Amino acid sequence: MKTLFKPAPTSPPPVDWESRFALRTAQMKRSTVREFVKFTSRPGMISFAGGLPAPEFLPVDALQQAAARVLEKRGKQALQYGESEGVAELRDWLADHHRRRGLRITQANVLIFSGAQQALDLLGRVLLQRGDKVIVENPTYLALLSAWRPLGVEFLAAPMDSQGILPGALVPLLRQKPKLLYTIPTFQNPTGATLSHSRRADVVELLRKHRVGIVEDEPYHQLRYEGPALPHLVELDAHSTASGSLDTNTIHVGTFSKVLAPGLRIGWVIGPEALLDKLIQAKQSADLQTSTFNQLIALEMLNSGFLDTQIPRLCAAYRERRDTMLAALSKFLPRTVSWTRPDGGMFLMATLPPHLDSARLLEKALAANVAFVSGAEFHLNDCGGNTFRLNFSNATPQNILEGIRRLGAILTDA
Amino acid sequence: MKTLFKPAPTSPPPVDWESRFALRTAQMKRSTVREFVKFTSRPGMISFAGGLPAPEFLPVDALQQAAARVLEKRGKQALQYGESEGVAELRDWLADHHRRRGLRITQANVLIFSGAQQALDLLGRVLLQRGDKVIVENPTYLALLSAWRPLGVEFLAAPMDSQGILPGALVPLLRQKPKLLYTIPTFQNPTGATLSHSRRADVVELLRKHRVGIVEDEPYHQLRYEGPALPHLVELDAHSTASGSLDTNTIHVGTFSKVLAPGLRIGWVIGPEALLDKLIQAKQSADLQTSTFNQLIALEMLNSGFLDTQIPRLCAAYRERRDTMLAALSKFLPRTVSWTRPDGGMFLMATLPPHLDSARLLEKALAANVAFVSGAEFHLNDCGGNTFRLNFSNATPQNILEGIRRLGAILTDA
Repeated sequence: MKTLFKPAPTSPPPVDWESRFALRTAQMKRSTVREFVKFTSRPGMISFAGGLPAPEFLPVDALQQAAARVLEKRGKQALQYGESEGVAELRDWLADHHRRRGLRITQANVLIFSGAQQALDLLGRVLLQRGDKVIVENPTYLALLSAWRPLGVEFLAAPMDSQGILPGALVPLLRQKPKLLYTIPTFQNPTGATLSHSRRADVVELLRKHRVGIVEDEPYHQLRYEGPALPHLVELDAHSTASGSLDTNTIHVGTFSKVLAPGLRIGWVIGPEALLDKLIQAKQSADLQTSTFNQLIALEMLNSGFLDTQIPRLCAAYRERRDTMLAALSKFLPRTVSWTRPDGGMFLMATLPPHLDSARLLEKALAANVAFVSGAEFHLNDCGGNTFRLNFSNATPQNILEGIRRLGAILTDA
Repeated sequence: MKTLFKPAPTSPPPVDWESRFALRTAQMKRSTVREFVKFTSRPGMISFAGGLPAPEFLPVDALQQAAARVLEKRGKQALQYGESEGVAELRDWLADHHRRRGLRITQANVLIFSGAQQALDLLGRVLLQRGDKVIVENPTYLALLSAWRPLGVEFLAAPMDSQGILPGALVPLLRQKPKLLYTIPTFQNPTGATLSHSRRADVVELLRKHRVGIVEDEPYHQLRYEGPALPHLVELDAHSTASGSLDTNTIHVGTFSKVLAPGLRIGWVIGPEALLDKLIQAKQSADLQTSTFNQLIALEMLNSGFLDTQIPRLCAAYRERRDTMLAALSKFLPRTVSWTRPDGGMFLMATLPPHLDSARLLEKALAANVAFVSGAEFHLNDCGGNTFRLNFSNATPQNILEGIRRLGAILTDA
């Protein structure tokens, strides 16, 4: 094997790969947020950049036990190829979970994906093509823009305030005949804003009236630190037909990344069967299936009731971190800076005076070993350059205090 | 939460989702092979349909130990978000593995994917667009066709014999200015054919001369039951530039699904950095990253030397199964049926007399609790209807004998 054929020195050069890229690649770029994952391990760095759960609460022991039980009880199933739709019992568990919240669905309305990101990516591939318009909150989730932009989609920016999208502002956008509204109704990324109950009803009814579908992305809703729980849009929207099949204008995307572990890569979609039937075809081509082993581990943890203790534990810890960050911002930041006060989730968004650029602040912050994501990334229409996103779930309260103190010192200097 | 807002009975119907599908979905369909995964668990079914490893040799205990060690040593890393490129040590292991075979690469030439299928899918998204032509073996891997067809690709069928693609037959296809050649050079799916050493050199040189890139898919090459090991195309093709960076016309795709476990979903790509830089952007949008837990389990198993015992064990078992199937075919099938004699891998392909349709045979076989995949699925240009693919890795020798006996009885009747 060592003495390989080598092309003669005169053989022609290889193809210039970059010149062969498909046109859609012009709309692809590296994710700033994903690149920040590399920073977070730098010694001394206090990172408010990623959307990472607290490492202290990652369920290493519970997952260890679940993995051992899975391999003992059904190891061969866990390691073999499985159904593209996902493990039937996990789909059943999710259908049952949503039914207990009041949504009449069956296993046939649930598909498993390799994280919510894959669900969003494949929904785009099934529903969107060049020239289609999609309404998104402005600002919105960066990796949704990255996934759908190469499809040739035009994004329409929906204005929002601390109560989420302004339904009245949707009307002129709906006249432009968009194909979808993409929304993160609860503890939105990056603002932390939550769509109020009455606006939820308004948005659902308005979109139905205009016959525009909704994709609701709900990764954070279980991380609530105050206020009453709200229904998902799909719950406000769904009818049951006489045949019992789900008749909905809203597609729901969920994930276990924030309440179990991101490293498992398990998300799901709730939707009508006609849509899921096409989505499963896209899934088969994309990666055949999500790891059966990981699905069975999640199922084992769910069946053991792990979330009943884990969610309160996470909420208590993240509430303290949010409160610490809000208090530190009040204490250390100049009065010219404002910020959102989320009821849950992992993020808040700060706003500098209009003439300041958060990307400049970030340079100085990184030099002081503090990281965040500057706001322009999340915004459409070249606005938001004076905003930045702060994650409060990943750093300890002590580091949150110290990190915000450093930011305050830089801003006071500037 | 139980008393949800319900749209008034007069509220308009939801969008008709099917009418909103993107045009590309017309090129998507359910994978027959994936659908067969459901059959294999039917009691009494002898399945030669899927490409499933033998359940008896799935490494449940070794993986159990590896998972326990990973969670003990680096549990928080395993369960947290990680780099989109893949775990650095796993990329290093793969770079080192390929270097020991003679290919001068570094970690920067290796990216991790959620199985080889995802690598193929994303290579398509980065390189292929409507109107592009791709040369493939005829027949070829079904899920490659499914992944690339919705991109609007036209496939050019390369004729092959028991030694793989006929290099001379490539010349007129290359004149049509294809963008890529996709090939499974070793123990091809579905034929079991292996491209000979001299043809490998010819194909590499010919494609370089025409400045057409190659994607080589090598899932089976370690499952060799006779004959000498052959170099990968990328090994014949790659130069090292003065700067030490990889200069190659061939992109290599590998997987651990056939030698560790499909349930882990770990594959990889070897290629030049300019290409991988774009491919990682596609990966970020597609699913952020592959499960860190699963990558670390694979790494732990690799570092323990597990493959040194597992590959010989698999080869011994699969060699026996292949030999059993070949002997049973000779014993039970009419003389009018012919079949390939692969040196390794998981599949052979049988050919009925031209007037017979293997889809008709399949109906009768399923009624007799024997499954296979009829050949038309894998073929371009509406040929191959009289062929069918038989997998010999999944069933026990005893079941192989019995299954082929049943097929023989059906064929003798017909």
